[in-house]
Amino acid sequence: MSQHIKLFIPGPIEVSEKTLRAYATPMIGHRSKDFQALYADIHPGLQRLFFTKQPVFVSTSSAWGVMEGALRNLVSKKVLNCMNGAFSDKWFDVAKKCGKQAEALQVEWGQPILPEQIDAKLKTGEFDAVTLIHNETSTGTMSPLADIAEVLKKYPDVMFIVDCVSSFTAMPIEFDKLGIDVLLAGTQKAMAMPSGCALFTVSEKAFAKAATIKDRGYYFDFIEFRKNQENNMTPTTPSIGHFYALKSKIEDFETEGLENRYARHKANALLTREWALGNGFELFPAKGYESLSLTCVKNVKNIDVPKLNAALKSKYYCVIDGGYGKIKGTTFRISHMGDESTENIRQLLGWIDDCLKSI
Amino acid sequence: MSQHIKLFIPGPIEVSEKTLRAYATPMIGHRSKDFQALYADIHPGLQRLFFTKQPVFVSTSSAWGVMEGALRNLVSKKVLNCMNGAFSDKWFDVAKKCGKQAEALQVEWGQPILPEQIDAKLKTGEFDAVTLIHNETSTGTMSPLADIAEVLKKYPDVMFIVDCVSSFTAMPIEFDKLGIDVLLAGTQKAMAMPSGCALFTVSEKAFAKAATIKDRGYYFDFIEFRKNQENNMTPTTPSIGHFYALKSKIEDFETEGLENRYARHKANALLTREWALGNGFELFPAKGYESLSLTCVKNVKNIDVPKLNAALKSKYYCVIDGGYGKIKGTTFRISHMGDESTENIRQLLGWIDDCLKSI
Repeated sequence: MSQHIKLFIPGPIEVSEKTLRAYATPMIGHRSKDFQALYADIHPGLQRLFFTKQPVFVSTSSAWGVMEGALRNLVSKKVLNCMNGAFSDKWFDVAKKCGKQAEALQVEWGQPILPEQIDAKLKTGEFDAVTLIHNETSTGTMSPLADIAEVLKKYPDVMFIVDCVSSFTAMPIEFDKLGIDVLLAGTQKAMAMPSGCALFTVSEKAFAKAATIKDRGYYFDFIEFRKNQENNMTPTTPSIGHFYALKSKIEDFETEGLENRYARHKANALLTREWALGNGFELFPAKGYESLSLTCVKNVKNIDVPKLNAALKSKYYCVIDGGYGKIKGTTFRISHMGDESTENIRQLLGWIDDCLKSI
Repeated sequence: MSQHIKLFIPGPIEVSEKTLRAYATPMIGHRSKDFQALYADIHPGLQRLFFTKQPVFVSTSSAWGVMEGALRNLVSKKVLNCMNGAFSDKWFDVAKKCGKQAEALQVEWGQPILPEQIDAKLKTGEFDAVTLIHNETSTGTMSPLADIAEVLKKYPDVMFIVDCVSSFTAMPIEFDKLGIDVLLAGTQKAMAMPSGCALFTVSEKAFAKAATIKDRGYYFDFIEFRKNQENNMTPTTPSIGHFYALKSKIEDFETEGLENRYARHKANALLTREWALGNGFELFPAKGYESLSLTCVKNVKNIDVPKLNAALKSKYYCVIDGGYGKIKGTTFRISHMGDESTENIRQLLGWIDDCLKSI
């Protein structure tokens, strides 16, 4: 076995040995009482993480599956895709690939989506859905979700579809209170679980809308998910290992306490931003909209990031991320989400300092 | 920890400790050279399992995802759904849920789909795709794939979509030679891997057809899978644990030898059928069409299967399956696929004999 390299990239990230052990629990039948007991056991914990009384679903897919599924379940007129980075931009392409009418609300990468921009579009009455990526992982930019949710409340017929893939469990996102219609998350980001699974919850309004859409398909059909969840089951064969991993993580979260968890993520973010600014870098996202789970650093000192990563890898057995898509190299990203203590992040920043001296 | 119950149900089945350990390998970045090396490493082995030179894809979904995806990628006119059990029947419903024109070729549960039945339908010229479940898991019935493939050769414009979820690696299915257009499999059946992943391969003809379909979506877009596989990557975040588990199983298969593996599955099937008939039961599938990976027994002696299973569980820490859907209770199913030796199956049958005495 080669030396394990610890991941400080924005997903997948380091998974604890405890969670990996849980993930590798021997199989049980997915139509068995044992499976039903497992899902029933974790469901209240999932609801607490989503701040909801609605059912929470575990999709055997990565987040993109649910992102596509939300369009197929909910868009009959036209969707407004809020775009400010690689993943949110792509959602627009996916909408068109699903044969949906779609319009781009494009802002510059690193800029947030602002409530008034959405309001101006929705006023036209053309749309029945909006997609928003709360925390755009490619740019480390967080849009003001609560303010946007206020705007959406003026448009009750417009489905509010929110991807919180890389902010989920790094900060509270109160599904019921914010009036979101679909909220989805990956498991390989702040949850610190193995990749290959997505979580989501759906409002009553969205279930009612889905029921009117005839070609919404089966694999991501929200109504099928609900019908099965009522019996603590899933529409299709689930990734059972991920259910055990979820159980393990929910235990961890409740031991730490959600408030402590959110505070730790904030402290990690503040420390990393401070390090970046204190070392002559700039932050890529617009001021006030920096992500709490990862820091996207503008590489104004033009350091050789691949060389930095090679040094981190060989000397400290860890890696950061060299930037994504069109901002690869001109930015780099440090993930500080998951199980990392502030002490761990301080240590990582020290390692980066050390490696920067020698490259 | 409660005592582990060994699964002799037709999926998920027992996963070896070696494979579970591989599955729980610490995460790597899915856009990293390490991931590319991992996929590149297993790809030739996957091609050998599918008897193909085409690219083989790993879908982060259960098999139903690819079953739906095949319809979305390939059906523009009308699909003929061959139906002879719970899963094949459902494929027809799924086609309609995807907004596709679909027609049922329904035969009785336990009967195979016969080539002449398909030929009669395709002669009408109404269809551009056929779905077939090679080994209908709900009834343990295997349709004559090679003969059906011969018929399909007369209709080169009709896409031949085959689900071999529960026969894959239990017997050779020669994708290129048979002229299949999409062949898909689950991992929690004969492959003896954790659930939550599906494998599939696609013909050049099917790629060309997919390219003409505008609303085929993104998550299961065959063209995206191919584009990414060329760089040893996946369109979306993969279930990395499943890639490590695949590597572990491909090693096992090559150590055993595929021919030996197929012979072992056949021996297990013959032994189980002999046991059933020798004990006054009948087989549910029509004679000559019995599955090689599981045996569906007609419960003509009206034994209390839940009681039998309770006895097996408490005395021998294992379970069989009590029947699926509308034939639950009137049938039961014994899985003899995966890593099980013929000696193991002989032992299981002895345990069943023992438990039948006391219930």
